[in-house]
Amino acid sequence: MTKSLLEKINSPEDLKKLDLTQLQVLAEEIRREIISTVETNGGHLGANLGVVELTLALHSVLASPRDKIIWDVGHQCYAHKLITGRLKEFRSLRQWGGISGFPLPAESEHDHFGVGHSSTSISAAAGMAAARDLLMEDYKIAAVIGDGALTGGMAFEALNHIGSLGKDLVVILNDNEMSITNNVGALSDYLSRVRSDTTLFRAREGFMALLGRIPAVGKPLLKLTLKFKKALKNMLPGQLFEELGFAYFGPFDGHNISLLQKAITNGIKRGGPVLIHTYTQKGRGHTLAEENPSRYHGVGPLKVKRKSEISFSDVFGQSLVQLAKKNPKIVAITAAMRDGTGLGEFAKVFPERSFDVGIAEQHALTLAAGMAKQGLRPVAAIYSTFLQRGYDQLIHDIALQNLPVIIGVDRAGVVGDDGPTHHGVFDLSFLRPVPNLTILAPSDGGELCTMLNWALQREGPIAIRYPRGVTTPCFSPEKISPGRDIKAKQLKSGSDCLILALGQLTEVALQAAKVLEPELNCSVVNARSVKPLDADLILRLARESKRVLTVEDHVLSGGFGSAVLELLAAEPDLLVHRLGYPDQFIPQGSISRLWEEFGLTYRTIAETVRQIVLGHPPSAAGRGD
Amino acid sequence: MTKSLLEKINSPEDLKKLDLTQLQVLAEEIRREIISTVETNGGHLGANLGVVELTLALHSVLASPRDKIIWDVGHQCYAHKLITGRLKEFRSLRQWGGISGFPLPAESEHDHFGVGHSSTSISAAAGMAAARDLLMEDYKIAAVIGDGALTGGMAFEALNHIGSLGKDLVVILNDNEMSITNNVGALSDYLSRVRSDTTLFRAREGFMALLGRIPAVGKPLLKLTLKFKKALKNMLPGQLFEELGFAYFGPFDGHNISLLQKAITNGIKRGGPVLIHTYTQKGRGHTLAEENPSRYHGVGPLKVKRKSEISFSDVFGQSLVQLAKKNPKIVAITAAMRDGTGLGEFAKVFPERSFDVGIAEQHALTLAAGMAKQGLRPVAAIYSTFLQRGYDQLIHDIALQNLPVIIGVDRAGVVGDDGPTHHGVFDLSFLRPVPNLTILAPSDGGELCTMLNWALQREGPIAIRYPRGVTTPCFSPEKISPGRDIKAKQLKSGSDCLILALGQLTEVALQAAKVLEPELNCSVVNARSVKPLDADLILRLARESKRVLTVEDHVLSGGFGSAVLELLAAEPDLLVHRLGYPDQFIPQGSISRLWEEFGLTYRTIAETVRQIVLGHPPSAAGRGD
Repeated sequence: MTKSLLEKINSPEDLKKLDLTQLQVLAEEIRREIISTVETNGGHLGANLGVVELTLALHSVLASPRDKIIWDVGHQCYAHKLITGRLKEFRSLRQWGGISGFPLPAESEHDHFGVGHSSTSISAAAGMAAARDLLMEDYKIAAVIGDGALTGGMAFEALNHIGSLGKDLVVILNDNEMSITNNVGALSDYLSRVRSDTTLFRAREGFMALLGRIPAVGKPLLKLTLKFKKALKNMLPGQLFEELGFAYFGPFDGHNISLLQKAITNGIKRGGPVLIHTYTQKGRGHTLAEENPSRYHGVGPLKVKRKSEISFSDVFGQSLVQLAKKNPKIVAITAAMRDGTGLGEFAKVFPERSFDVGIAEQHALTLAAGMAKQGLRPVAAIYSTFLQRGYDQLIHDIALQNLPVIIGVDRAGVVGDDGPTHHGVFDLSFLRPVPNLTILAPSDGGELCTMLNWALQREGPIAIRYPRGVTTPCFSPEKISPGRDIKAKQLKSGSDCLILALGQLTEVALQAAKVLEPELNCSVVNARSVKPLDADLILRLARESKRVLTVEDHVLSGGFGSAVLELLAAEPDLLVHRLGYPDQFIPQGSISRLWEEFGLTYRTIAETVRQIVLGHPPSAAGRGD
Repeated sequence: MTKSLLEKINSPEDLKKLDLTQLQVLAEEIRREIISTVETNGGHLGANLGVVELTLALHSVLASPRDKIIWDVGHQCYAHKLITGRLKEFRSLRQWGGISGFPLPAESEHDHFGVGHSSTSISAAAGMAAARDLLMEDYKIAAVIGDGALTGGMAFEALNHIGSLGKDLVVILNDNEMSITNNVGALSDYLSRVRSDTTLFRAREGFMALLGRIPAVGKPLLKLTLKFKKALKNMLPGQLFEELGFAYFGPFDGHNISLLQKAITNGIKRGGPVLIHTYTQKGRGHTLAEENPSRYHGVGPLKVKRKSEISFSDVFGQSLVQLAKKNPKIVAITAAMRDGTGLGEFAKVFPERSFDVGIAEQHALTLAAGMAKQGLRPVAAIYSTFLQRGYDQLIHDIALQNLPVIIGVDRAGVVGDDGPTHHGVFDLSFLRPVPNLTILAPSDGGELCTMLNWALQREGPIAIRYPRGVTTPCFSPEKISPGRDIKAKQLKSGSDCLILALGQLTEVALQAAKVLEPELNCSVVNARSVKPLDADLILRLARESKRVLTVEDHVLSGGFGSAVLELLAAEPDLLVHRLGYPDQFIPQGSISRLWEEFGLTYRTIAETVRQIVLGHPPSAAGRGD
């Protein structure tokens, strides 16, 4: 069997030996490799298929690793990985110990900046350009950003800054007319106008020429012609970017390699801040993904999904629809994660009460604050890792005014294959200090809808954290009076040890206690509320057993276990041991694999209890610290 | 003595009885009141003097409290407060128990949204507009935002969203050609072009009329005329905002009350999202403030500043200049807080290595990450409360890649008169969980420059938190090898109790220990490093005394004391008590007053030690909880 073209590409340098036809063949080989790997491992399909030609154009014009290519979000880096010496490892994509689904500097000298969240590339590229010039080095820098990512405020902050800094730097706008679901906002409308106006802009060229041929009879007509030319200049596409100090080139077909090569070459030659506008098709070359880009944005491995399976996000979305039918004040907000957060159904049933603000967590939360201030009951669903983007707004706009905004903190805990950029393991630490905020964590779908129902009757802000993954549906939610707090729930009694568990690890803790039963008799408590803690119950049981173990799908530093330590600090003769993640970024891998690695299985819990109760307590901060 | 006009204004309703001349007289009375109060109490002078006419125009056209006026940042609300029934209390501005320097809904029904941070007003107004329409209510909403605040990414996120939502909403761009120091970025350049182009735009009107009078001889000329008209439309000022879906009106002289009244009336009539561009002069009516707006942005009470006084920010800035002279890789970054963070001198000495990105904390930190990735040593100075805006960038762009970015966390702890929107009391809780991050807290200026010097020789990200206020200069900084961590420092020995103090409260703790000496013998340790903690020293001394008291200028939930609890969790027979702020937003007041209120004086510390050591331990979470 002859080697494929792709197999012969060991580094971007090898691209330079290929002619255009070969590059086009290579593009198709890359597409096949991406599709077959994603079908096995899961991953981001649409975005990656959309930028194959763009990747080849960039790498054939630039000279990585000397030149820097900065990918925004990074979920479109598969073609880049395949042509930078990672073809062989590509089958380990997103798996424990395998290669990352995002650019990762530790993985390759061609990954110039680590990423996973949106809208960071222009800032990073600006920093590199400043470093290059100050250190008097000489290399080229290109940042590739999608139209969706461009709605994130920090991308605008960066454009605004660079436009006046004037450094040599090329921004490639990869315009696929959508972020993860539909793109939203005026910027998106603007970009479609630019795209649809190309005929007009092309006509302009001919018109300018014609104008040149008109005999300038008399001063007034000459003046008119000059003014007209000036006015026509203002009709250039990309005026918005020009106003921000960028030279704009485009729009270009993002699947035409030679056109892209020319555009990039010219953009670099131009110098200063340049924006090259290309339009690409998400899912290009994969019929299903082309037709339904949202469905094929991020996909799991091909398998038959059991009909009965329901995720925490599904329960959240379905419960909200039910509650919203009874309460017209309920509105839902998402930041470009409508389907991921289970709010698709809500948007269908209540289009007027559903707000997708684009990749804009800051705005999402202050928008919610404004709504709550004027009498609505906004519910914002945001992934834990992205809530980090709206932290100040949560404190300053929501909590300080004690506004009744509910935040569904989705994907809390480790999320699996997306890895360290996406794990939601810091939220309890950064949410706990926020005054006025209630923090809840359901152990299953039933509790999630109980909590959502309760929260919508309360005053003040409430965060409900729940994980990625499958759970129980909401059959008969508990009725908890809004006049009282949500209390912890004792699932098992026993006086040898108290196991305080949070969220879906409650089940694992219960299993551990059952395994221990022949030797030790442990209480197991489903904490349910992190703030406030159920102080009465916890104090009473802790005083009984004198040995406490906390279990959480979260970092140990400042998390749930720390809240328990704070509560029990004044208790004499009492030892608290905590299980959770150590002080390091957690790698990618399946959730069960990560729990295994970091000691969050029923076996480790049982073993830890043995150590605490029977002596030889393990080190203070849990395994792996 | 006859009553002044201002004394007769009890609510905005009363404005409607005044004619234009009276409004102008009132404006001058308001200016005098603002100047004299700020001279006594301190406060924001320039911004408030700049918007007196705008405030009168808004309140005479709109009908607050029914209609909503949302102030961005809020440091320009003094005129608003004076005409909404707070003239009598105005002399208590920014003082303990007095009225706030920012809009505060709890204070008046005319303060429609609480604020203190920048760039939130458009989001809040959008939320209110959505609420109004869904609840089928009928009122007007105006958001007032400065050109500086407009550089904040979330303002752009909001513009982008509203432009496509299409709700009735007026945004007033209060363009004073600067944020706190000079405005930066392409947007600022753009706005000056718009302002300077008014002659062109006025000419355009005449030109259009002329064009109408040209006899349309023949089709080509007719066509040309039509095209020309279309092109001229694109020459409108404010095209940038039009592209984002706003109807643009302006620019208008922001000190012309009747012009502003007309503009606001017309803007409201127009419907949909409208942007009214006004230009105002900061410090208007106060010669010194007009001439030096940065110096008079926020001022303290008039008093003779002792020449020898030096602040933590000064030490930070001066040390950085010294270090940068030896190391050309050092660059400084600020987000529109150059003077406040002591980086003014650095900008003068190293203009090429000084980066003011505007009000854009997100971009500031990822810019720093890009710089560090390519070999620079960036130092970003950001107020603790504003670091909340760059939290995700710190985790995702800096810490995850373990990049050597130094963050000067200025204004950490309570800041005094600016109150709850500005206190920096959450940073330790949100920074502690971040892997790879070192967190330091100097107790005085000498330690600050020691730490900065040490940090610049280390790999990895380092946050140094220091407070507002006066300290010691940096005489002979300690030399600490970059190969070892910064250790805690025992200042006094004693085995009855261990007092672990952080930052400038170390001195207070030491005083407490001295007061206690006749009765009890306490160790006092200056912790210096929060992450990592000096585990050896703390464990050894804690085991000796069995009683530990932590003292911090920070909330108790997840802060320094919690880090100590985590460290000592496995220690038997040991009690840890923590002093710090309880779980509530801390009000305004002088720093010493706040320390008094919240039990951070040497007296309270001494009393707490007595209780811990001699029995009757106080409640677990400190005073006020």
